[in-house]
Amino acid sequence: MNTLVNGMPGESISVRDRGFQYGDGLFETLAVANSVPLLWDRHMQRLSRGAARLGIGAPDIHLLRQEAEQLCRGVARGVLKIIVTRGPSGRGYAPDPGASPTRTVSLSPWPDHPAAHRAHGVTVQFCRTMIARNRATAGIKHLNRLEQVLARAELDANCAEGLMSDESGQVIEGIMTNLFIVSRDVLLTPDLTHSGVEGVMRGLVLERATEMAIETRMTGIKKNDILQADEVFLTNSLIGLWPVRQLESKAYPLGRVTQRIREAIGDAIVAD
Amino acid sequence: MNTLVNGMPGESISVRDRGFQYGDGLFETLAVANSVPLLWDRHMQRLSRGAARLGIGAPDIHLLRQEAEQLCRGVARGVLKIIVTRGPSGRGYAPDPGASPTRTVSLSPWPDHPAAHRAHGVTVQFCRTMIARNRATAGIKHLNRLEQVLARAELDANCAEGLMSDESGQVIEGIMTNLFIVSRDVLLTPDLTHSGVEGVMRGLVLERATEMAIETRMTGIKKNDILQADEVFLTNSLIGLWPVRQLESKAYPLGRVTQRIREAIGDAIVAD
Repeated sequence: MNTLVNGMPGESISVRDRGFQYGDGLFETLAVANSVPLLWDRHMQRLSRGAARLGIGAPDIHLLRQEAEQLCRGVARGVLKIIVTRGPSGRGYAPDPGASPTRTVSLSPWPDHPAAHRAHGVTVQFCRTMIARNRATAGIKHLNRLEQVLARAELDANCAEGLMSDESGQVIEGIMTNLFIVSRDVLLTPDLTHSGVEGVMRGLVLERATEMAIETRMTGIKKNDILQADEVFLTNSLIGLWPVRQLESKAYPLGRVTQRIREAIGDAIVAD
Repeated sequence: MNTLVNGMPGESISVRDRGFQYGDGLFETLAVANSVPLLWDRHMQRLSRGAARLGIGAPDIHLLRQEAEQLCRGVARGVLKIIVTRGPSGRGYAPDPGASPTRTVSLSPWPDHPAAHRAHGVTVQFCRTMIARNRATAGIKHLNRLEQVLARAELDANCAEGLMSDESGQVIEGIMTNLFIVSRDVLLTPDLTHSGVEGVMRGLVLERATEMAIETRMTGIKKNDILQADEVFLTNSLIGLWPVRQLESKAYPLGRVTQRIREAIGDAIVAD
C-alpha cells in the first residue's frame, strides 16, 4: 500500500485521531484505470455530503485530486481509498471546534475477484448480521463499519456477497455492494433513508437506466420480493456489476435488463 | 497524553489498522486514583466479552495490566483509556485470520467536571440523535461511536448530559453514561439487549443496590417513565454518579435512593 497522510508519504496516524477513537469520519473507494481514478466527481460529491452531515469541515477536493493523481500515476489498475476524519482531539465525544480534519489517500492492488463474477454472475446468501436503522448516519459512507465486518465474517466460502436486512425485515444492501432487482421490467433498489450506503455506482446505474427508458424505483424490498424477482444484480465502484445467479435455493437467469445495465456502465468500470 | 502502542511509547498507529478503517475494535475508560486503575477486573471482563463477541483474539490481560501500571505510576488521578482492535489488515471487510490485535493504552488528565455535578446534580436533555438497535453490537464497548459524537454535538451548553432513545421510543442511555430511575422504591435501568453499553459502573450499582436490599429491574424505559420517576441518576466509571435534577421542564429532588447508591459506590470512584 502506498499512502499519503495529509499530503505526506507515511503509513501512520495519531492515536488521538477521532477516526481511530470513534470512527468519526468518512471514506471513499475508487477504481483506478490507466492512472485515472474513475467517477471522481461523484465520489467527491458523496464525500462532501457526508462531511456536511457529520459537521466535519468540507474536504479540500482540489488537494485530494492532486494527491490522488500523485499516487495513481502510471497505475494500470488499482484501488484508491480516501479517508477523511474529524482529526485528532482530546478525550471525550465532544468535537473540538479547532480540530483540523485528517485525510489519508492510499493506493492498493486491484482485487482478485474472478472475471466470471461479472461475466456469468455470483452466488449470494442472506446474512444473519443485521444492519441497524438510523437516519442520522444512513446514506453516507462513514467509518462505523462493524456490522459489515461481522456480516463478512459469516459469509459462506462459496458466496461472493451477502445481503443484509434491517430489523423491520427490509433488505438494505450487500455487505460491500448495493442491491438491484428487476420485477416485470421495473428496476428496483432499496430505499436508503434509514440505513445503507448510497453507492456511487448505484447512482450511475439509476441514471443510465432512466436514460435507457427503464423504469426505476427506490422502495422497500423484502426477502420475498428478491426471491420472486426476475433478475437480481449487485453494484459497487470496483466490481461494476455482478449478476446474481443463485440466492439460497433460488436460481436466476442472466437477464436482459441486467445485461443492458452492465453494458451501459462499461465506460465507468475497470475492464477485466 | 502518554501512550503505549503494543507496549512501546508512541502516539501513532498504522493507517491500515482496522480500528481506523472500520472501527473494528473495543475500548475501556478507567478512572485512576493514587496510581491504581479502578475496577480493573470488571473492565477487563467487559473487554474480553467484547473481544469474544467480535471474534478478536482474547486480549492479554496480564500485559495490559503491566502497561497500565507503567503509565499510572505516581498519578494522583487521571483517565486510562485502553483500545484493542483487530489489528492491521489489507483492504476489505474480511478479517485477516493472521491479523494480530493492536492495543493502545493512554493516560489523560482527569476531566474537569464541576464537583457540584456529583454533589448536587445536573441538568440533562433528550437528544434528537437516535441510538440504533442491533443485537450484534449491543452491550459491548466497541469503536463505532458516531451516534455518540453526533448526539454530543447537539447538547445544549447548560446540559451536562443527553439521553438517547432508539427508534421504538425506548430510552437507552446517556451519551457517555448509563441511566437509572427510581420509581416507588424500585431501581430501574434500561434493558440493553438491542443497544447501549453495559457500563462497568452500571454493573456495580446493580450489585450494590441488591446488597442493600433495593429491588432492581432491567426493563424498557420510555421518556414518560423518566418524567414520572421519583429519582433519576446517571453513572459511568469516571463520574461515578450524577443525580439528575432537571430534565426538560421536569425537576427532581436529590432522592434518598440516589444518595444511598452514591455512598455505596464511594470506594470505587475518584474523590472530587
